[in-house]
Amino acid sequence: MSTADRITGVLSPVVTPFKADLTPDPDRFIRQCRWLLSQDVGLAVFGTNSEANSLSTEEKVELLDRLVGAGVDPARMMPGTGCCALTDSVRLTAHAMKLGCGGVLMLPPFYYKGVSDDGLFRSFAEVIERVGDRRLRIYLYHIPPVSQVAITLPLIERLLKAYPGVVAGAKDSSGDWNNTQAYLVNFASQGFDVFPGSETFLLQGLRAGGVGCISATANVNPGAIARLFGTWKAGDADVQQGRLNEIRTIFAKYPMIPALKAAIAHHGGDASWATVRPPLVELTQAQQASLVADLDRAGFTMPGLKG
Amino acid sequence: MSTADRITGVLSPVVTPFKADLTPDPDRFIRQCRWLLSQDVGLAVFGTNSEANSLSTEEKVELLDRLVGAGVDPARMMPGTGCCALTDSVRLTAHAMKLGCGGVLMLPPFYYKGVSDDGLFRSFAEVIERVGDRRLRIYLYHIPPVSQVAITLPLIERLLKAYPGVVAGAKDSSGDWNNTQAYLVNFASQGFDVFPGSETFLLQGLRAGGVGCISATANVNPGAIARLFGTWKAGDADVQQGRLNEIRTIFAKYPMIPALKAAIAHHGGDASWATVRPPLVELTQAQQASLVADLDRAGFTMPGLKG
Repeated sequence: MSTADRITGVLSPVVTPFKADLTPDPDRFIRQCRWLLSQDVGLAVFGTNSEANSLSTEEKVELLDRLVGAGVDPARMMPGTGCCALTDSVRLTAHAMKLGCGGVLMLPPFYYKGVSDDGLFRSFAEVIERVGDRRLRIYLYHIPPVSQVAITLPLIERLLKAYPGVVAGAKDSSGDWNNTQAYLVNFASQGFDVFPGSETFLLQGLRAGGVGCISATANVNPGAIARLFGTWKAGDADVQQGRLNEIRTIFAKYPMIPALKAAIAHHGGDASWATVRPPLVELTQAQQASLVADLDRAGFTMPGLKG
Repeated sequence: MSTADRITGVLSPVVTPFKADLTPDPDRFIRQCRWLLSQDVGLAVFGTNSEANSLSTEEKVELLDRLVGAGVDPARMMPGTGCCALTDSVRLTAHAMKLGCGGVLMLPPFYYKGVSDDGLFRSFAEVIERVGDRRLRIYLYHIPPVSQVAITLPLIERLLKAYPGVVAGAKDSSGDWNNTQAYLVNFASQGFDVFPGSETFLLQGLRAGGVGCISATANVNPGAIARLFGTWKAGDADVQQGRLNEIRTIFAKYPMIPALKAAIAHHGGDASWATVRPPLVELTQAQQASLVADLDRAGFTMPGLKG
């Protein structure tokens, strides 16, 4: 099958801005997405780092409509559409297809634990059959530290056999290189595109046949991560990777989502960006000050964010 | 505060019937709820065992409307209304209040792991404030084996202090008697009603100040469990408890939700009851036959279910 039109490169699970009343803020969201595209980073909206699982299906549909309505290119979007309820996953996925999204990133249903591969196969298969659109590109979302429900090798094998072309790849947020490597070794040759879930594995992934990465910190360090993707065969690739790791390590010292938002608030000069929805909480004043100081010491900037 | 009008006794997290196309089946649902009430068991609809987390908010609202519309008493209902998304939890809880439900059973937001008690307090507080109805009775739902997000003692203490009367109790599905006991010892005297999450702890719970239980197997063995609740001070209480445990142990040998549905399908003479929604799968033919044989050997019946 042709994979020429597939999404590759660096994508950001775009953080979702909230107003003071905790409703999503479409205008700030659109501005942020435009800034990310200007840095050559694609839009994995409604990811874990987007607080997407703290949004209702209705809120996600509305935000996606606003984004596409504002002229942001849906071909650059890979919205998260995997929910606990089959009917929500079908609704969101069908809507993403209708809007022309380049793909969708699909969590397995994540409330019930210890479910079988049979049940997970049936979940994904029901969504695919009900959406019923051969242009659909599903990226399976493996994030066992959070979802607690794994996308196993036998499950991928069955899905690829049943829905070649539609099952287009995976995001691997296990943080376990051995798992990423197993995805690549077993399935990359069948047109299964693997995105490590962090730029920490960007260079290693590209060298092993990966196609980019989808990373929390692509929200704040998009340009540098995209540059490594574009120049990974250059002589300074390992140096670039080291520099990316340095920034990533700073963010990883803090609760990730509030830290991403605090950095955007600080570097964008827009304090309201710091707001998170419960059950998350904002960084404390001390944590914010410490994060900003850490980033300043590392010479971190967010070019073009302000204004 | 007065706790005279509180829900007590045995409640069933009512299993949700599905049609062949996996849509909920309101007519079978209403019949099942009426049968449970005839056995003196209350309706904790939309619990874990109801596959509630495989239903969209819209589907839950519609089922609840149908149930109340059919004349089933909302005062006997404690629907599950805790979702990942704040907006879904508010919508469902407000709807349950509008319909006159006796209480709601509220999961914490369960996608994000390792969240703080501050964040969970804020979640529950936002729901309470937004629903804004002093008749609201929230039962906190502690089920760490599935939700992976705990309702800790300090969290209960803060919530009880901020919202006395509204925070009315908890269902403890930890399976850990020490936790149930800690809830009782610390909070029962403040009008905090504790329901163990299984009839295994019914007698022990009642003797320690609990108010009943909310149990999966109350879907299939409601009369006997309700009888122990009604006669727990009688001389044969321990014998009754032993007999309940015997039946519970049989169901626990199989995947619980498909086993409950298989038993209802068999004893009600209605094969379509066996259907589950993905990611769950039905029992195999061999498992069904084995379950039925185990139950027959134990002299298990479901009086009044058929016809």
